Amino acid sequence: MPAISRKGQQLPASPIRKLVPLAEEAKRRGIRVFHLNIGQPDIASPSEAFRPLREFSGDFVDYSHSAGHMKYREGLARFYQNLGLDVGAEDVLVTTGGSEALLFTLMSCVDDGDEVIVPEPFYANYNSFAVAAGCKVVPVTSRMENGFALPPLSEFERLITPRTKAILICNPGNPTGCLYSEQELSTLASIAEKHNIWLIADEVYRDFVYDGHRHHSVLQYDAIREQAVMVDSVSKRFNLCGVRVGCVVTRNRELGATLLRFAQSRLSPPSLGQMVALAALDTPPEYFERVRKEYESRRNYIVDRLNAIPGVVCPKPGGAFYCMVQLPVAQAEDFCRFLLQDFNLGGSTVMLAPASGFYATPQKGLNQVRLAYVLNEADLAAAADCLEAALKAYER
Amino acid sequence: MPAISRKGQQLPASPIRKLVPLAEEAKRRGIRVFHLNIGQPDIASPSEAFRPLREFSGDFVDYSHSAGHMKYREGLARFYQNLGLDVGAEDVLVTTGGSEALLFTLMSCVDDGDEVIVPEPFYANYNSFAVAAGCKVVPVTSRMENGFALPPLSEFERLITPRTKAILICNPGNPTGCLYSEQELSTLASIAEKHNIWLIADEVYRDFVYDGHRHHSVLQYDAIREQAVMVDSVSKRFNLCGVRVGCVVTRNRELGATLLRFAQSRLSPPSLGQMVALAALDTPPEYFERVRKEYESRRNYIVDRLNAIPGVVCPKPGGAFYCMVQLPVAQAEDFCRFLLQDFNLGGSTVMLAPASGFYATPQKGLNQVRLAYVLNEADLAAAADCLEAALKAYER
Repeated sequence: MPAISRKGQQLPASPIRKLVPLAEEAKRRGIRVFHLNIGQPDIASPSEAFRPLREFSGDFVDYSHSAGHMKYREGLARFYQNLGLDVGAEDVLVTTGGSEALLFTLMSCVDDGDEVIVPEPFYANYNSFAVAAGCKVVPVTSRMENGFALPPLSEFERLITPRTKAILICNPGNPTGCLYSEQELSTLASIAEKHNIWLIADEVYRDFVYDGHRHHSVLQYDAIREQAVMVDSVSKRFNLCGVRVGCVVTRNRELGATLLRFAQSRLSPPSLGQMVALAALDTPPEYFERVRKEYESRRNYIVDRLNAIPGVVCPKPGGAFYCMVQLPVAQAEDFCRFLLQDFNLGGSTVMLAPASGFYATPQKGLNQVRLAYVLNEADLAAAADCLEAALKAYER
Repeated sequence: MPAISRKGQQLPASPIRKLVPLAEEAKRRGIRVFHLNIGQPDIASPSEAFRPLREFSGDFVDYSHSAGHMKYREGLARFYQNLGLDVGAEDVLVTTGGSEALLFTLMSCVDDGDEVIVPEPFYANYNSFAVAAGCKVVPVTSRMENGFALPPLSEFERLITPRTKAILICNPGNPTGCLYSEQELSTLASIAEKHNIWLIADEVYRDFVYDGHRHHSVLQYDAIREQAVMVDSVSKRFNLCGVRVGCVVTRNRELGATLLRFAQSRLSPPSLGQMVALAALDTPPEYFERVRKEYESRRNYIVDRLNAIPGVVCPKPGGAFYCMVQLPVAQAEDFCRFLLQDFNLGGSTVMLAPASGFYATPQKGLNQVRLAYVLNEADLAAAADCLEAALKAYER
């Protein structure tokens, strides 16, 4: 048999998914599994979004422009302008989800053997995009003790080599929920400027910001106007994960032209998804306010519940809908298996994502899990009950 | 400013799209442009396909399984089984169009510096996928004189080196329309077997086969059961180009697992597109029969019309909806520009794709164009009138 490529062999299995067979097996045994392991929320999308589907009257579904429907690009540009960002339709390239946006960006910005500095813990699929682009992820470790704040400037400087081509951040963070301050972003912008590297920000959770804080974008910094690349998506904003519509925003013409050539090679982002995403731009501000309050309330509930469990530590995140949780166990992955294989509380259990897969540094995060507060409060409460009881049972 | 990656710089501009600005300019001048340059047909999709959109009642759109909705994978497997192919749902990975299927396949099968033999002229985006995967396209030239039949075994053998990892074909061919015979596929299978390389077939035009012939798939050959990879899509079959739903079919477990890891990195193929594609599987056989007859009739018309123009040569293709046309000009690309910039017949002109971009060998196909017979016969006639008049005007 012909060999699989080295790239294919290097591709890591997703840390979120490797326990999925155990969850499926638990369900076959009749156990109810609360899925706090993935970012698939239960929140209804804005009703505006689905009008174009119900009213669909086309004879067929044709390709859009490779950069996306111009109307949608224009609408997106206005959306960002309303947030105070200087973005024109020509700066927006519509992609097949934020995933493709990240893949095209890395493919366009880095070469085989180049290095990209990423604060860890980070979204595990960054590893896969890096393998696909042939670059090396260089982690800079952030710490639970200070809520996964941006590591100090000196730690970045220490890691920069002639092969460093970019810094990649997620803000607010998946899996940390950390919202970077204006000061932290300013630091990142100054590093990017000084070392003439790309600053790529995955801002797909930009709408989920709590405690009255404001989200700051890498697009705000004039000094890195041509070096800042912003990745976004409608997946989380409108709970439209499955429509697969994201975008890259860059004011750098050369990068924009390169991204477009990658986009042309796959012809078009999904047309139906773009119809839905375009309609969703009419969502009234009340929707965002309601959803933000709902998540904020869930966050407050789950963080308090978790920190009340002996030995559990959970810093209160400022954004997104994840929190990182330190458990009083040596190997969180073993405990996650235990939850699915050997435990239930009145016929229910909970699925969590072991956090070590979110770190590039070996042996980091072994006693941590990522928890997505994507279920309603009653389910969150039941899931927390399971977790609490399971920790007691696991101690014995 | 930071540099663009070498990969990004190497990415070729699409030969189909580079004349697009001229077409847009012509339209601004009020000229009607017949688009025979791209494979975007005017045929109505089966009405069954859109029922799930009109009846959509979800609260949100969630991710599907990374390998696609199981119901759709099962439906696709049955579709192939009905064609006599031994395919199970577990052999099918649903992708974001045939484009992603090809990208993931190359990423999984070849490494940086590896070689993939491709009969030329070939679908130009293969070049982009090869750049993304880091491999080298090695062309083996097929010839208009014999309808772009498969080059003889000896020409393949001559090109095989230790770095050759795969042969990639498109059957029926884009841009040639050539339908490979059972004998030709058998030859390819024997080369793949003998040299232990992958045989990747892009069969997205498998439903468009004329003159009572039958389509043969690379999946038919038991000797290469684990080496044959088939790429397919609903884009052309049901004129659902914009839903972005394709698939890879492989019976090789290791390749399947690798493709799945690439698929997991982008989470999910489009959910709405899969709903539509699943519903389209209920399309009655009469639909395919009607569409096939329509294209066959268009092909017969346009090929006869073209060959009647002095100096024009157009072999009659056996499949797909393209034909390659030799024009009595030195540089077809210049002539295509002339059509858009300097010519109109009663306010109309025609856009064609210069064929040199479909060849990897320099200086090949300079006097050829690809024509897609994707418009109705009245429009095809008007377009042919334009072409004929333009050739006369261009001679002067």
